Amino acid sequence: MSAIDTLATELARLPGIGRKTALRLTYHLLKQPAEQVQRLASALSVLRERVHPCQVCFNLTEEAECAICRDPRRDLTLICAVEEAADISAIERAGEYRGRYHVLGGRISPLDGVGPGQLTVRELERRVAAGGVTEVIVATNPSVEGEATALYIQQSLAPHHVRVSRIARGLPLGGDLEFADGGTIAQALFARREMT
Amino acid sequence: MSAIDTLATELARLPGIGRKTALRLTYHLLKQPAEQVQRLASALSVLRERVHPCQVCFNLTEEAECAICRDPRRDLTLICAVEEAADISAIERAGEYRGRYHVLGGRISPLDGVGPGQLTVRELERRVAAGGVTEVIVATNPSVEGEATALYIQQSLAPHHVRVSRIARGLPLGGDLEFADGGTIAQALFARREMT
Repeated sequence: MSAIDTLATELARLPGIGRKTALRLTYHLLKQPAEQVQRLASALSVLRERVHPCQVCFNLTEEAECAICRDPRRDLTLICAVEEAADISAIERAGEYRGRYHVLGGRISPLDGVGPGQLTVRELERRVAAGGVTEVIVATNPSVEGEATALYIQQSLAPHHVRVSRIARGLPLGGDLEFADGGTIAQALFARREMT
Repeated sequence: MSAIDTLATELARLPGIGRKTALRLTYHLLKQPAEQVQRLASALSVLRERVHPCQVCFNLTEEAECAICRDPRRDLTLICAVEEAADISAIERAGEYRGRYHVLGGRISPLDGVGPGQLTVRELERRVAAGGVTEVIVATNPSVEGEATALYIQQSLAPHHVRVSRIARGLPLGGDLEFADGGTIAQALFARREMT
């Protein structure tokens, strides 16, 4: 296989990149300075060597503990449980949350063969049992699997006398009622708050 | 900068890949087998080392001459002039053309500072002057610059008593050959007209 085909084949394995886009990217790279292509190659090479899960919260990090767990200004009484490390970036971008995180490593999904044992719920329990945590916010996705995972976490933490909360579901900011699906509208109505 | 940020930054330099997509791809790669990520990295590394222009037609190749120029079954009397090497893949996918190619290396675009001197029109003239070629099909894109380039090629080849034809405007005006479907490209080749 030619060097062009080899790269296009590897690029086409990425999500959202089809054969045509992979070829277009390859031809684009052929027109870029060789150093830029080399920087991309070495960034890929070091990625898997350096990055591993944080030993506290399973966020991705290059240290023993991630930057958030090491930050003394973060609120130690709050843990936000998310499905994937990528979800942490999304929440951090919002800039509202000051507690710490716990990456579950997925969600319970019997169809995909993912049971509670494959997630880091046991480790979350251990963190709560160690004391100092007053609330666990379950921020799994608002899907069937995300809800099932949230319920499992709530039950697992029940003996630990910690508040377990679930992120609100409703219309997205800037969303349009006209185009929202029925489930979202039902949730938005159910979770309505009194205006004071 | 962390390994994750470094890779995301390099990926975001690619066309059509924004910061969010770059991060999503990075997190995706962190979940893939390390060998797959390494294969992508090495495919990138060898790309610029191995691939260079064909010494006959300027198509991209890993040999002295590209696979099309070396293929004895190709029709030596026909040359199809294209802007970029990527356009050759698009025409080959259509499976209708059996001649050889000539990669111009762009199109005449005074606004971008690209004049005829930066293109390989002189080399195309030399190929035609060497004899054996009866027709040059100009398959530059149907844009203002592509048309100007076609006209320049026609004038440059006028002294050489060779038929110069232009692919039909089956392609939507302002479209890009690289992204056209095979049927449209086949139609455009079939309905080519002699330039007078």
